[in-house]
Amino acid sequence: MIRTHDAGALRAEHADATVVLAGWVARRRDHGGVVFLDLREASGVVQVVVREDDLAHDLRAEYCIKVTGTVRVRPEGNENPEIPTGGVEVVADEIEVLSESAPLPFPLDGSQDVAEETRLRYRYLDMRRPETASALRVRSQAGYVVHDVMRDHGFLNVETPYLTRSTPEGARDFLVPVRLQPGHWYALPQSPQLFKQLLMVGGLERYYQIARCFRDEDFRADRQPEFTQIDLEMSFVDQDDVIAVAEDLVARLWRDVLGYEISTPLPRMPFFEAMARFGSDKPDLRFGQELTELTGFFADTPFRVFQAPYVGAVVMPGGASQTRKELDSWQDWAKSRGAKGLAYVLVQEDGSLGGPVAKNISEAERAGLAEAAGARPGDAVFFAAGPRRASQELLGAARLEIGTRLDLIDTTKWSLLWVVDAPMFEEDGSGGWTPAHHPFTAPKPEWADSFEQDPANALAYAYDMVCNGSEIGGGSVRIHRGEMQQRVFDTIGITKEAAESKFGFLLDAFQYGPPPHGGIAFGWDRIIAHLTASESIRDVIAFPKTASGGDPLTGAPTEITPDQRTEAGIDYVPEADEG
Amino acid sequence: MIRTHDAGALRAEHADATVVLAGWVARRRDHGGVVFLDLREASGVVQVVVREDDLAHDLRAEYCIKVTGTVRVRPEGNENPEIPTGGVEVVADEIEVLSESAPLPFPLDGSQDVAEETRLRYRYLDMRRPETASALRVRSQAGYVVHDVMRDHGFLNVETPYLTRSTPEGARDFLVPVRLQPGHWYALPQSPQLFKQLLMVGGLERYYQIARCFRDEDFRADRQPEFTQIDLEMSFVDQDDVIAVAEDLVARLWRDVLGYEISTPLPRMPFFEAMARFGSDKPDLRFGQELTELTGFFADTPFRVFQAPYVGAVVMPGGASQTRKELDSWQDWAKSRGAKGLAYVLVQEDGSLGGPVAKNISEAERAGLAEAAGARPGDAVFFAAGPRRASQELLGAARLEIGTRLDLIDTTKWSLLWVVDAPMFEEDGSGGWTPAHHPFTAPKPEWADSFEQDPANALAYAYDMVCNGSEIGGGSVRIHRGEMQQRVFDTIGITKEAAESKFGFLLDAFQYGPPPHGGIAFGWDRIIAHLTASESIRDVIAFPKTASGGDPLTGAPTEITPDQRTEAGIDYVPEADEG
Repeated sequence: MIRTHDAGALRAEHADATVVLAGWVARRRDHGGVVFLDLREASGVVQVVVREDDLAHDLRAEYCIKVTGTVRVRPEGNENPEIPTGGVEVVADEIEVLSESAPLPFPLDGSQDVAEETRLRYRYLDMRRPETASALRVRSQAGYVVHDVMRDHGFLNVETPYLTRSTPEGARDFLVPVRLQPGHWYALPQSPQLFKQLLMVGGLERYYQIARCFRDEDFRADRQPEFTQIDLEMSFVDQDDVIAVAEDLVARLWRDVLGYEISTPLPRMPFFEAMARFGSDKPDLRFGQELTELTGFFADTPFRVFQAPYVGAVVMPGGASQTRKELDSWQDWAKSRGAKGLAYVLVQEDGSLGGPVAKNISEAERAGLAEAAGARPGDAVFFAAGPRRASQELLGAARLEIGTRLDLIDTTKWSLLWVVDAPMFEEDGSGGWTPAHHPFTAPKPEWADSFEQDPANALAYAYDMVCNGSEIGGGSVRIHRGEMQQRVFDTIGITKEAAESKFGFLLDAFQYGPPPHGGIAFGWDRIIAHLTASESIRDVIAFPKTASGGDPLTGAPTEITPDQRTEAGIDYVPEADEG
Repeated sequence: MIRTHDAGALRAEHADATVVLAGWVARRRDHGGVVFLDLREASGVVQVVVREDDLAHDLRAEYCIKVTGTVRVRPEGNENPEIPTGGVEVVADEIEVLSESAPLPFPLDGSQDVAEETRLRYRYLDMRRPETASALRVRSQAGYVVHDVMRDHGFLNVETPYLTRSTPEGARDFLVPVRLQPGHWYALPQSPQLFKQLLMVGGLERYYQIARCFRDEDFRADRQPEFTQIDLEMSFVDQDDVIAVAEDLVARLWRDVLGYEISTPLPRMPFFEAMARFGSDKPDLRFGQELTELTGFFADTPFRVFQAPYVGAVVMPGGASQTRKELDSWQDWAKSRGAKGLAYVLVQEDGSLGGPVAKNISEAERAGLAEAAGARPGDAVFFAAGPRRASQELLGAARLEIGTRLDLIDTTKWSLLWVVDAPMFEEDGSGGWTPAHHPFTAPKPEWADSFEQDPANALAYAYDMVCNGSEIGGGSVRIHRGEMQQRVFDTIGITKEAAESKFGFLLDAFQYGPPPHGGIAFGWDRIIAHLTASESIRDVIAFPKTASGGDPLTGAPTEITPDQRTEAGIDYVPEADEG
């Protein structure tokens, strides 16, 4: 090693030691013939004192240097309690420039906001800032925890293929031409789902992988075309077994990385309860403002809008004193979500109701509404009426918006829970059904024999882990019997041909004594974003893509040349078709 | 868990315990009213005794079953010392079929050879065989060791992108069209090389990753289009620092997986010594038969063939007694390697020389040859004459062939060493030079100022780890100064434009105080093949491709439909070009 000591580890006990350090010039301050440098490297920062001007006069920010010098305790009054090495400094005898730095495109001391595009363009400089460096360190530390936990539970780490089978049904698959088999293409996998189920058929019993996944989807704010999952699968298990492993994993991550004790077992909330109380299948339990259902309350209402299959409400504490402009902004907010608007009443201090809705409802409704909705004088009550699911979702979003606007969310708390008992199927919009998870998800045991008779109400043996209102993991017990699998295919109207094309090899495998099995996949980028309190998953990925899928650093993706097309066999035409 | 006990963990101490087991029917033997089943699962095998015929009469091989029963010590004389559970058996009270199995395409008991294509087609069954299961278990265990070692050395695990920049120079890159940016393509990386160097510029100092790599190359026997590397890079280091970490990693792998103590530090052999003594840059030191150079010995030879820049020999002990057919087979062997033939002499018991070469050389040469070549009566001596490198390689291959034919290789030994001081450049076949490693490889310090003046002899600061005659890892100290990098580009004749297109972003990064750094990448599949004594890396990959790049299980790669082409933007033509 070029250095003898880690700069960040120097303490008073090293006084008088001769040390060789290596790192970057983080800051330079000139004080009448003496130059103070902050030398930064992976272990931390230490102050270097340069007395002879000729040693330091060339040094600028982010030069990479080697310093030979002597440690001394700082003169009294000059200590810096904010850094671990603040009690000492290194008096330089010799400084060697290992490499120079051009002027920086942005300052690295974090005192200024820098456009994300610029940070990504110069990601290697951005990584020298403590926030980004720390996020990558936490990600690495958390990865070590994953390996420890999975090893403790007897799991095998298996690498599944990234060059897999493309199928016409595989919307959003990235495709890869194969030069030596022109006209033939691989697909990059959206998840290792099929392969991990094959591993269970293969008798491996406990599999996990920190797996890269690929999805050529419409870019949204916080999506990446490649992302990482902690993927695991277990044989001879029930839902509770998978949940126990998953809870241990999460508890150890939070404990080892944050020193935070998650209390396990985590609460489990049925899907329909989560929708009814929080208007979300990923409820944030760090604050109240639960929804109230008023369908019964408004059963005989004269107000046409509330003559609906579902009427519900959410209360905004103190919301009655909002200005006209603030109330209008709620309408804009609702419209931006695709709703027509957001009906409301304002509960006045005397208990009377204001706002446009109040006039339209009956005298008795006016009298009982505040109590029914759980509102107090001074509160606003927001309503949604219409189809149950969509209305609940609107109220759930309003609840979150209330929480944000009123700062009701206790950000020192962690809200972790399971949402279970979700519907097995969703309406596909054209009178049929589509699997809510994936077509291998088993029904709950009590629906095993009857799911196809009542697909609207059949419940899946599935579980989603929710953290602070975002889904961080999801899994299910899988179907392992061909007969049941066929009934699911029949229910969702998937043809034998389509099933064969898409995952025929898995169905083949299921002929050979498949074990009962189940698993879960965690969104690793999302979990690390939680653990580092990052706004975006881009902050916890070493080299992320922008929202449009580009990498400002490398310039990927790029146009390719005709020669590349030819070489890769992209435009290959089978001879029989050429004539 | 469906089971209460692991089948493979049952011992005499469990006698009389009621247990629930779950696994597969590995074997069934009927003995007059009593059926013996071998129940196999991840933990091992146990014998199940079924007394009542109706419990067992449906069970066939590879049915997945749940067994409820009682453990008992086997009657005296019935123990099976070959399995850990051989002292006990489980008397079944109840058997539930969890899933049935169709008749197997091949038997799983390993007693018969099965075509590899069939094994891959039914990989999930092949995995139930102990060899394949064990290889995957070793791979997982070895992965845990890697994480432990790298953590001990303070390395950060960082995931680098798999969707990267394609460049016209990137021969053998797999390309990936981007649906939302039609006409633009990603490339899959052949290694994380550029990204790990960026991480060093970013100040991470110690990076590692178990990284998937992709290469659309001509398929050869033991290559895969996707393969795995243990990839690491370190800052502020010299060659010895990287070597120390790499040796610790390998020593811990061999110790933890095989219980074998590798003695470190490993020997280091200069490249030219390896070529001179073993005719290989990856010498197998488990046996002797070193090459002897006879260029000087034949300096004045009348034999035209030996009037060459290099003449060398390798001895085949006892080879003088080979039959005409055996001697001919060496000629065929040499021709199959592209050589014209393999000159030889046979040293007779009386010391005289036989074979066609003997007649052509001088009297004095005949008299001294055996001693000069280190041959004894009864040996054969094979020669190669011509350009030094190619001739040494032919003799090196002959040496290996001798070792194999005569069974000289001590397979209980491990031969691990470093080959160092390799040439920095190779002739490119058209009068120029090409980098022997990659263009960021630094020269050895003594060549730092002069490599471009003598590219034929300049040595690289590079190191390859060799195990039993195969390269398992290779790395180098990298260039971190722009001035030196430019001199390398000038030497290999790479234009500014080509450098900019291929890795301009790395050169940009090197403007900002890059640290001295170096690293290494290990071929993980190859290492696991060594650790499991597997013939092929396909045996240690869960779902490998065949030599032609296909996956017999999933059918990948496949043809794609016109709709898929359109959807993926494969045939996008920019409007301006449409004319």
